[in-house]
Formats: sequence, structure tokens, C-alpha cells
Amino acid sequence: MSEPLRIALAGLGTVGGGVIRLIETNAALIARRAGRPIAITAISARNRSKDRGVDLSRYAWEDDMVILGERPDVDVVVELVGGADGPALALARTTFEAGKALVTANKAMIAHHGLELATRAEAAKVAFKFEAAVAGGIPAIKGLREGAAANRIERVYGILNGTCNYILSTMEDTGRDFADVLAEAQAKGYAEADPTFDIDGIDAAHKLSILSSIAFGTAIDFRNVTATGIRRVLAADIAQADALGYYIRLIGMAETEVDEAGNRRLFQRIHPHLVHRDHPLAHVDGATNAVVAEGNFVGRLLFQGAGAGDGPTASAVVADLIDIARGDVGAPFSIPVSELDAAAPADTGHRRGKAYLRFTVADRPGVLAEITAAMRDAGVSIESLIQKGRAGEDSDQVLVAMVTHEGPESAIAEAMRLLEGSASLSAPPLVMHILEE
Amino acid sequence: MSEPLRIALAGLGTVGGGVIRLIETNAALIARRAGRPIAITAISARNRSKDRGVDLSRYAWEDDMVILGERPDVDVVVELVGGADGPALALARTTFEAGKALVTANKAMIAHHGLELATRAEAAKVAFKFEAAVAGGIPAIKGLREGAAANRIERVYGILNGTCNYILSTMEDTGRDFADVLAEAQAKGYAEADPTFDIDGIDAAHKLSILSSIAFGTAIDFRNVTATGIRRVLAADIAQADALGYYIRLIGMAETEVDEAGNRRLFQRIHPHLVHRDHPLAHVDGATNAVVAEGNFVGRLLFQGAGAGDGPTASAVVADLIDIARGDVGAPFSIPVSELDAAAPADTGHRRGKAYLRFTVADRPGVLAEITAAMRDAGVSIESLIQKGRAGEDSDQVLVAMVTHEGPESAIAEAMRLLEGSASLSAPPLVMHILEE
Repeated sequence: MSEPLRIALAGLGTVGGGVIRLIETNAALIARRAGRPIAITAISARNRSKDRGVDLSRYAWEDDMVILGERPDVDVVVELVGGADGPALALARTTFEAGKALVTANKAMIAHHGLELATRAEAAKVAFKFEAAVAGGIPAIKGLREGAAANRIERVYGILNGTCNYILSTMEDTGRDFADVLAEAQAKGYAEADPTFDIDGIDAAHKLSILSSIAFGTAIDFRNVTATGIRRVLAADIAQADALGYYIRLIGMAETEVDEAGNRRLFQRIHPHLVHRDHPLAHVDGATNAVVAEGNFVGRLLFQGAGAGDGPTASAVVADLIDIARGDVGAPFSIPVSELDAAAPADTGHRRGKAYLRFTVADRPGVLAEITAAMRDAGVSIESLIQKGRAGEDSDQVLVAMVTHEGPESAIAEAMRLLEGSASLSAPPLVMHILEE
Repeated sequence: MSEPLRIALAGLGTVGGGVIRLIETNAALIARRAGRPIAITAISARNRSKDRGVDLSRYAWEDDMVILGERPDVDVVVELVGGADGPALALARTTFEAGKALVTANKAMIAHHGLELATRAEAAKVAFKFEAAVAGGIPAIKGLREGAAANRIERVYGILNGTCNYILSTMEDTGRDFADVLAEAQAKGYAEADPTFDIDGIDAAHKLSILSSIAFGTAIDFRNVTATGIRRVLAADIAQADALGYYIRLIGMAETEVDEAGNRRLFQRIHPHLVHRDHPLAHVDGATNAVVAEGNFVGRLLFQGAGAGDGPTASAVVADLIDIARGDVGAPFSIPVSELDAAAPADTGHRRGKAYLRFTVADRPGVLAEITAAMRDAGVSIESLIQKGRAGEDSDQVLVAMVTHEGPESAIAEAMRLLEGSASLSAPPLVMHILEE
């Protein structure tokens, strides 16, 4: 058996503890599959004395985690600290400067600094891997970067945030409203005390920006991911979608297109969608994640599994380590950073599709006429219109939902503009795109 | 850009043509991702003059495909001839003898000779890859061998035959019977003129034997895969399953267990199952395949996509080539052949689960009493019993279906033995296992 691959672990939270447990529990089979043992040599975390339920005494301790990257007894640094900047970024830079490989689960750092770090890794000819940063335990990056590598990827999309999917599918199962389910998820530890990153689609946007770079060979462009979260989805929307044969899911979607001037443009959006019940994403429930890649030869590939949690995330981290032990030092984003295409963001107005629109309106004559007139004036064709019951028990507001025929998104935006400031609407309309089978 | 990876192509049927089209169509992006171009240098097929819709004049031609393995201008041979033995096997041996890598889609050859070939490849220190042999375009082998590499795999199972799944889901959608749907599938080219390999589960058994070797580190043991196909599934069974909340799918399943003497045993079975509607495999429709791997840290991973067809299969073949171009020369079965465990087949009697039993019986008093008495005597507990209508319009036979409580499979086998030869049964009972959520 060859020399062990020696790793240093920065960050001993849930995932860090999971990585230690995994490497200890499955040590023998990992060594067989990797062709050499994977051995933890040094660790670092903010608090040395905290009880983490694992014996840390056999590993060297560093108070300053950045030092891990410089230790001569370390081949790979595993960064599980989190945060786009700060110590995680300092550690990553130091690691590459010292000519060592880096494995991380830090989606925010990659979304913000991935190109800089990949450039450093490529210059140092060392591995830089981050399977755990996207969709937890699912080998989605490997699936795109290697499994689908022969294909021009036409679209990559999926369910990238387990907290949102848990909330939506619980709302679906129980008929309860968003705030209620969120509060329960927070109490159970499924959602953060400050749930903004999850609920507003920012976490999913981090992941999507990484996936689209690998899928399309474009430079990571997190800042131009348009993100709308799930705060405004009502139990009534879910019931209505169900009656129409759809499930509501927060979908991250990316595509490239060529504009009129012949330039490649990148479309990236996180948005709640109505997903047709015959689409595989419709049946992804609970905290599960799923990534779909559509290639010009392979067709539609789906990768599904646990999107978070210590075990699944540790599985992805150690899979990266096994790849490194086996000798994989490929380009982090599939092609060298210097060849990535800096595509400008796409204009979404000409995108065509069906949409679900829901209005919260005053219950008085003429309101429906006003809405439908705006649709007509904007050129939006209505496929079905449902005037529903009151918005709440004591409410004098009524919910009106409609599904449009397929048409350009610009027409819907125009209709929304026409209705802006209307006294009939007591809240901004909710627009959700429809993902057909 | 480095030197091209030079490949020779043996077999120019549907998949061979797909590989040529893919390598030509996506040449630029393949070169970028692989770090070097992939160039076809030589080809061979049975019939040189057949029009295949692609220009073959730029490639050297060999009448004897085995010569491809010896050509000095070839780095990798791609074998797409098929057949467990014969020219395919001769070519594979020659290729490794000449110190060249081999990529193949030939599941039968791997199921029968995979260990011998992997031994040769390992001795020659060359790559031997066969992603296209299992589940078409889905990177299922990569998913197991690399994506889930950190895990002890506890179970691997899935929908491994697109023809069977197409037939079952068409029966489901249309209410038509097996023979009728099979005939249509044959007319459309979705099923072979001789459908035995697909319909009776042999093709799925080839694939399962490969997956289980990689998942569990056991020697390939195709001969001990128990295979039951879908010939005996009736439209009435599908309707009954649906009423109970299940879909019928042909499932290949493999697990390892430890017997009383402490020896590891390998369970491998292809069998039609009732799959609970909340299980992700329930919604895999048409010719789609799906593979589930359950790992001790990652939990349940699902890989889904097109299980056959020229495009998807070519995608998997070229993904292997890109891996080779990038330098991957890992053990074909994840760990070296010499370390694979020759596990004896598991005894299935103690396996516990629910089952669906369907009897075709004479329509006369006492028949049901006879069946239920056999169940009682064998210790099978019945959860629900449905006496259904006549087996056919002009039939005097009646179908009786039941679902058992969870119990050992040996009890069901015993009940079937007690009923063997009974004058009340006009056909052998159909037993299907139940895969819960």
C-alpha cells in the first residue's frame, strides 16, 4: 500500500465531525478504493475545548487555521469553516501558495472567489475540489464535469436548497402556511434562526453559479443570478397548483443563449416554479436535492439525494479526497480558468413559457375586469382563471389565480407594470414560471 | 494542446455511429474538457460497404477487427460489437496484450469475462472502462465507483432495462396487456425481434452483476443472479397495484449480508416489484433507467436517465474516453481484482418483506378457502385480499390477488409449495415483492 494521503481539517462543526467519523468508520474500504489510506494529521477550529463526541487527541492542533496550509505533514487541506471571505479565503490562498490541494464545501467562497482560487490551483498544479458545495452528498459536479463531459449541456437546473424544499413539501402535505412551517423547521433545526440565505434563494444561487460554470464553460457569475425565494408562496397556491396537476418547487435554472449580436449570454435564475407532475423534479420531497442536466447526446440526466446533513456532506468531501488520492488533478471548472467564457447575463424578456399568476384583491365588482384588461393590453393570453375564496378567515381580500398560455416573459412583466399601483391589488402579484413535463 | 488520444472503433451499428457523430459534433468542447483532442484513427465492422450516414473515408479500415488492438496509431480501442465471446472477447484480449486501453458497452462480455479482462488491464496498467454497459447514458458506474466511493454501499438497485420499463409503463398508461404492448414495442423497434434477453431479465442481470461488484467489492457473479422477467404481469396486476398505491417495475437488486458462519454472502435478484408511489423509482417511466445506491453516510442516491439509444450510449462511451484522456487508469471494479471478495450467493429465505400474490383460479366454491389455508399453514399473514373479476372476457377463470404482511420469503415459498399441483389453480401463482417508500 502506498503512503497515506495526509489531510488537515479546518472547521469542526457538524460537517467536520462527519468527515472525521466517516474517515474513521470507513477507513479500510477507503484505503482499498483510493489505493492508499487517507489520514488526518492536523485539525483546527475556533474552540479547542468544545466536546464534539470524537476523539481529537491523536491529531495535531493548530489555533490558527491558516497555518494548516503550511504544515509539511499535510497534502490536502479540507476547509469546512464557511464564509465567503475571512479565514476560509486566507486558508485557501495559503494552501495553494504552499503547493497543496484544497477540498471545500464552501459554496459562498466559490461563488465569490472560485475563479481566483482555481487560477491559483492551476498555477500550482494542485487539485481544488468542491463536490460538497453543491447539493450535499449528490455527485452533481462529478456528474456534470465527468459523467456528462461528452455533451454540450443545454440546460442545468434543479432543486438546490433542502430547507426550501422541506418547507414547500410540508406545506403541500399539511396544507399549512409558510410562516407556520418555517417556524416549525427552525424549531427542529432544519432551518437557520436567520433563514434569509435559504428562503430567499441566495444559497441556491451560490450553487447554481457553480453548476452553470462547469456546465457551460462560462466564468462564475454569481452576481447576475436573479433570485426569488419562497416567502410569498401561500398554502392556497400549493392547493391550486395541485388541482392543476403541478407541485411548487424552488427551481434554480441556467442556460446559455446567443444574442442578436452573436454573443453568448448566460441565463441564471432561482424562482419558485409550478412543476408538472410527470416531471421527475415534482416528486423530490423533503430536504432532498436534485440536479438535472440536459445534454445534446445524453438527453436528460437526473442526480438526486440528500442535499445537506453531516453524513451526505462528508461523503462528498471524502469522495473528493479519494479522487485526489487516485491522482485526479483536473481543472476545477472542467476547463482551465483562462478558457472560461465571460458571458454577459441574458435578457429574460424573450424567454417563452407558461406562468402562474396570483393576485390578492379587494372583493368588489370590476377588479377582475381590471386585471384581465391589463393582461389583454400586455398581450398575455389566459389559459385558465380561478377566482378563489377569501385570502384568510377574517380577510376581506380574495385570491385570484390564473395560468397563462405559453408566451414571452416580457408580456407578463408588462401586465404587472400596468397593474402596478392599482387600488384593486392589496399586495404585489405572485408570478411563478411553469416547468412542463 | 497535447497530442490527441487516438481511438479505434470496432462495430459501427447504432451506437458506433452515435460515437462517431458525437466525437465529430462536439470535437471542440471534448478537446477543451479532455485537455486534448479525441481522434478516431481506425475502424472496423462486419460490412464495409453499408451506408451508415457518416463519412468513414477519413478513417483507416480493418477487415479483421482484432487487428485494431495491435495498430501502433491507436491508444484506446472502443469495442461496440457485442456478444459475450467471439470477436469482442478476442479483441479485448489483444488490446490489453498490446498495452492499450479498452472502452466497451458490452455488458454480456463483462458479466462473463470482466474479471479476466480487468486482471489483464491491471497487469498492463491500462484503463478498462465500461460506463455504457450499465444503464446507457447514466454515469451509474462513475456514481458508485467515485461519487459514492467514501461509503459502505448497503444496497444497490434500480430499473436496469428500458424495454421492460417501457412495456410496464405503457401497460400502466393504456390498460393494455403484455403481449399486445410487446408486439407494438417490437414493431416500433423498442424491443428486439427475440425479446428474451430483455423481457426475462437477463440483460438486467448482466448489468446488476457489474454494479454489485463495484458497489460491494465482490467478484462478478452473473451466474448467481436470480432473474424473473415481466412476461406474466397482467394489466389486471397493474390496475390492482395502482389501486393499492404502487407501480409495477422490474427491479434489479443487490445486497450483501453475513451468514451464520460469519461469511459474506451476495444477494442479486431481478424481479418485478410493486414500488410504492412515494419511492423515486415509481415515477421512472418509459425507456428511462435509474440506479439507486444506499450508502452508510450519503444515504440514498439516485441516478436517472436514458438507458439506451445511440446518443446516450455514445455519451457514456465518450465520457470514458475523456476520463482516459485526463489520465484516469483506476481499477476497473474500483478495487484491484485480486482484492475482490468471492462471496457465495445469499440464501433468500430469511429475507423479510411484503409481497403481492396473484392466483388464477377456477370460479367455484372452496378455492379461496384452499388458498388461505395454505397461507395459514405456511405462516403467511394476509394484509388484504382482493377477489377480482374474470381473467378474460371469455374466461371461466378468476383472478385473486393479495398483499401479505411483512414476513420471511421462505414462508411464501412454502405456501406456493403447498399449493403446487392444486386443481384449483389454473396457472402458477405470480409473486411480486414490494418495495416500500
